[in-house]
Amino acid sequence: MTDALTADAADAALELPQVYTRHVFCCFTQRPPQHPRGSCGANGTQPLWERLGKTIEATGRRDIAMTASGCLTFCQAGPIMVVYPEGVWYQPRTPEDIDEIVAAHLVGGTLVERLVVVPRV
Amino acid sequence: MTDALTADAADAALELPQVYTRHVFCCFTQRPPQHPRGSCGANGTQPLWERLGKTIEATGRRDIAMTASGCLTFCQAGPIMVVYPEGVWYQPRTPEDIDEIVAAHLVGGTLVERLVVVPRV
Repeated sequence: MTDALTADAADAALELPQVYTRHVFCCFTQRPPQHPRGSCGANGTQPLWERLGKTIEATGRRDIAMTASGCLTFCQAGPIMVVYPEGVWYQPRTPEDIDEIVAAHLVGGTLVERLVVVPRV
Repeated sequence: MTDALTADAADAALELPQVYTRHVFCCFTQRPPQHPRGSCGANGTQPLWERLGKTIEATGRRDIAMTASGCLTFCQAGPIMVVYPEGVWYQPRTPEDIDEIVAAHLVGGTLVERLVVVPRV
């Protein structure tokens, strides 16, 4: 995390009870297949999303949430997802990638380094 | 934050460089006006979203992001937004509410207590 975030984490005013331990957002933006920017939807978000839902549900953890999102702006890396509160961006490709993200990060709190993408703003 | 989150924040394996200092997700789910669950879209997300975009842009801060999202599941409290990494849920009603969230929380790192909603999972 940046120094700013570390400072904030120490700020009692922002320490509310958390609704979710982890919250995953998956981009569902759909552009035509030939579009120069590409898109997560065209690159296969849907089956990964469905796998994510089933895998999270199987954990029985109601404190792990998933939400579809609009464009996360790093389209060529899609399908892309971001996990908060850690702010980790992942580029899953297969159902097994999803399983690993759920088990290791969402449940286990450890990074899946091989699937991390660090987008540039 | 919960103990789990505090523990994670101390976990070096999850301390990646952050893409965004703060990232706001706004629910755009639209159900018919008479729908029993209500919806953020039907309750006026669009004008607040536009205000949010203009207000963030005016700060010149490229490390503050906003993304439209699907259902955030606390529909009757809508329009609803969640700010990460802090995991703070807000229930803005007016353009002035948006301005305050941007200035105080997104830029200033302090909570806007009067607009906080703590949803129950």
